[in-house]
Amino acid sequence: MSWEETVASKRAVRDAAVAEFASNGLTSPKITDDDDASSLVRRLKDGEVSTETVVRAYINNACKAQAKTNCLTEVCFAAAIERAQALDAHLKTTGDVMGPLHGVPVSLKDQFDLKGIDSTIGYVGRVSKPATANAWIVDVLERLGAVIIAKTNLPQSIMVNLAHADPLNPLFTVGGSSGGEAAMLALHGSLIGFGTDIGGSIRMPAHMNGLWGLKPTSNRMSYRGVTVSTDGQQHVPSSVGPMTRSLSSMVTITKAIVDAEPWSADAQCPRFPWRNDCLEEYSTRPLTIGLMLDDGVVKVHPPIERLFRELAAKLQEAGHDVVQWDVGLNAQCVEIMDAYYTADGGEDIKQAVGEGGEPFIPHVKALVERGPAISVYEYWKLNRRKVAAQQAYHEMWDNARSSKGQPIDIILTPTMAHTSLPHRKCRWVGYTKLFNLVDYTALSFPVGRVSKTLDSAGTDDYVPRNAYDAWNWAQYDSESMDGHHVGLQLVGRRYDEEKVLGAALQVEKLLNG
Amino acid sequence: MSWEETVASKRAVRDAAVAEFASNGLTSPKITDDDDASSLVRRLKDGEVSTETVVRAYINNACKAQAKTNCLTEVCFAAAIERAQALDAHLKTTGDVMGPLHGVPVSLKDQFDLKGIDSTIGYVGRVSKPATANAWIVDVLERLGAVIIAKTNLPQSIMVNLAHADPLNPLFTVGGSSGGEAAMLALHGSLIGFGTDIGGSIRMPAHMNGLWGLKPTSNRMSYRGVTVSTDGQQHVPSSVGPMTRSLSSMVTITKAIVDAEPWSADAQCPRFPWRNDCLEEYSTRPLTIGLMLDDGVVKVHPPIERLFRELAAKLQEAGHDVVQWDVGLNAQCVEIMDAYYTADGGEDIKQAVGEGGEPFIPHVKALVERGPAISVYEYWKLNRRKVAAQQAYHEMWDNARSSKGQPIDIILTPTMAHTSLPHRKCRWVGYTKLFNLVDYTALSFPVGRVSKTLDSAGTDDYVPRNAYDAWNWAQYDSESMDGHHVGLQLVGRRYDEEKVLGAALQVEKLLNG
Repeated sequence: MSWEETVASKRAVRDAAVAEFASNGLTSPKITDDDDASSLVRRLKDGEVSTETVVRAYINNACKAQAKTNCLTEVCFAAAIERAQALDAHLKTTGDVMGPLHGVPVSLKDQFDLKGIDSTIGYVGRVSKPATANAWIVDVLERLGAVIIAKTNLPQSIMVNLAHADPLNPLFTVGGSSGGEAAMLALHGSLIGFGTDIGGSIRMPAHMNGLWGLKPTSNRMSYRGVTVSTDGQQHVPSSVGPMTRSLSSMVTITKAIVDAEPWSADAQCPRFPWRNDCLEEYSTRPLTIGLMLDDGVVKVHPPIERLFRELAAKLQEAGHDVVQWDVGLNAQCVEIMDAYYTADGGEDIKQAVGEGGEPFIPHVKALVERGPAISVYEYWKLNRRKVAAQQAYHEMWDNARSSKGQPIDIILTPTMAHTSLPHRKCRWVGYTKLFNLVDYTALSFPVGRVSKTLDSAGTDDYVPRNAYDAWNWAQYDSESMDGHHVGLQLVGRRYDEEKVLGAALQVEKLLNG
Repeated sequence: MSWEETVASKRAVRDAAVAEFASNGLTSPKITDDDDASSLVRRLKDGEVSTETVVRAYINNACKAQAKTNCLTEVCFAAAIERAQALDAHLKTTGDVMGPLHGVPVSLKDQFDLKGIDSTIGYVGRVSKPATANAWIVDVLERLGAVIIAKTNLPQSIMVNLAHADPLNPLFTVGGSSGGEAAMLALHGSLIGFGTDIGGSIRMPAHMNGLWGLKPTSNRMSYRGVTVSTDGQQHVPSSVGPMTRSLSSMVTITKAIVDAEPWSADAQCPRFPWRNDCLEEYSTRPLTIGLMLDDGVVKVHPPIERLFRELAAKLQEAGHDVVQWDVGLNAQCVEIMDAYYTADGGEDIKQAVGEGGEPFIPHVKALVERGPAISVYEYWKLNRRKVAAQQAYHEMWDNARSSKGQPIDIILTPTMAHTSLPHRKCRWVGYTKLFNLVDYTALSFPVGRVSKTLDSAGTDDYVPRNAYDAWNWAQYDSESMDGHHVGLQLVGRRYDEEKVLGAALQVEKLLNG
């Protein structure tokens, strides 16, 4: 079978599954507007609505999301409805929900193994090779009562920043690589999603779609049963993390996964139980916040600057202390990161692409042709540079003090230098991948939208600092970007998930007035 | 300067420093028989003896140890005496000791950076390149009051199992690579030592010298400022760990280092505070112990079997439950380990050896000529195999149950298949390096000695299973080995230092009757 035939037949299966449910006659009931997982579970428990109704409503949205953005790869609608019926029966029999995620519709980036279903990770060569077991996170989700609706799209190789159409505008990208997930969530096709992030792949699509996206420290959540390209490249590890439409859901799902004790199942996960005291402390006390509006390489577009400054002012008004963050190490960190992606000369990706006989997509072709493989000896040298850069960043953070002499609790920084761009225009992801290199906790959160009224003036006189900066600045267009989402990041250090989410609770209150 | 001249001049400096102190007229007073660091500190605090007297007595022993075994590389006697005088002055002025290691003489394997002093790690090319700062552990030791006496010998490359003469018998090896450290401690040249272990380098010399040697989980203690060969090979990480003559000192130093919060100083160390409750639990309750007398590849010599079985019987009599440990994964784990050591085709070691113009020692030559470098792509594949092996071991441990249905708390296994052997005869280190691959906590402890009376019979009819096994069996000679030390290992999982030391407290009580 040619690769085109494989793709066509694979798509036909998906399309048929969608078609079966696309016309189920349900108009999306209001229930899918409830973005808080715990609230939904309460309502299910109270009998306000059945799990089956909820799941059917989400499936209805998912079908529309697919039609609009091509966000789905694997469709689990029939199984989801069966599962919903079983949950309803459980509730009826026992009088209680199955767990803290009872009935919550979940979607997964197409890397998470679901038994009996492909994990193609965007490669034709992986079609019709179903997973033999569930990913650990899938088992946990099911144990806690969640309902898995579908798996979502990602680009060939997972290593480039593109995946399908922005729900707001088909000419613009939804962001990547967890872009199918972002489109699905943004269009209320699910309530909680899971992606992966090795350079910003959770945070960038979250930023472009008004979502919350968490890149935890690597191995805070388990990667068991999550298929990935360049697997074995453990030096700049990819992280599994959740994506949601609300902070409350984000806190619920993060806590639920950590409480499931990844370290008990996964030899790679160190034992870090959930620290609620930490979350509470950071959600209540005045914080000292490092501000990095500009990463020193590529200046952000005007709406991002406006929203960043507005939030920084609100934080100060609310009694938080802010301090300018040092960007002196950023360029070096990004340079080291880039060397890892292609240390094998693109061999891993070439092999995977070759297996299916498919052509490279242009971005991937550029990636694998960036240069020859380095030797293991050079690779070890690169690791030494990485360790030194991580240590330098660690010490910089340790030594930083506010004007009041306080150490820094958290960093506030943009997620990207631009909002959603026309397809294939993203070139600079330094704001996100910096925190993959140091393996810090980073949460992208929605802060507002582009306004052609507020963000149209005064962009002509900027003198770019370098080619990336010039490219980025030239992309800005307040007219076509009007209404696009803007996200910012809250960043903590390693295993600081509770601190970051705690700080986010304070930020959210300020943003909501 | 030729490499021979460099070596000669380097040795002359050391020898002069030793000579200056070798005839200080002190006969070793009894104070150096106190192997318990806390007891020594109490005695210093009570004014029973001055720190200067203690340090001079240890220096006297160190000079004798050097004469007997060539265990020293860098000599810090003059600075140690100055430091002792300062500690005495501190005690006199404040009425209190400087910290929990006040006046405790410490030696360090010649990898730990001491400001102003070489860290040659056995390479001529590193002579006269003094460290510009202390290793983190050195700073901690000094803050806690310890007195650093000297740095100790290790073989070229650190990667082979040999270093100088056994204090018991110059025809036999002291074990390696932390062998200088072991000789120094065994001859009471210091009270606490630090080594490193990437395949057994702490535990093997501990085993051969009647010492306690702990290989912690990597990054439980900090590697900052510790020079190492094949640095950057982070996949099978080397661990820093302590070596002592008593378990009490081992507990004291391990707790002291962890309490110093390595994670605050070292970006590689995750935050794992000391868990005293864990130590207490494992030192008091009946344990379920996995017994691995034989690793399935190389059978241990008769005295090791005898002492192992005696201890196992005592443990059962004392109410502990024992269960045979599964060895099915061992050979595969060791094979993966071996692939890492030379993944770069020996390039790192070749470069380091070449820098000094020195010849390879035979063991190192064999190591670097084992095969060509693999590609980064192959290296990533190797990492995948490693992760799979770690996961398989993890699951095997999880699933193991005693006859009473209890999960396994700890493993008891030999440290090596033989006691000290004649120089250059060690060939199998599978009992130790297995636990480097899975990155578990492993403590080698002294269990007894070879007895030509008890251990002479019944070795002729053994049919070896493979070439390693045959080689090892052929080395056995109860006459020449009479009186040699035997060590065993207690093994816990990742970050289980408190559990392993707790279990060791119970074992020690049984051994002491």
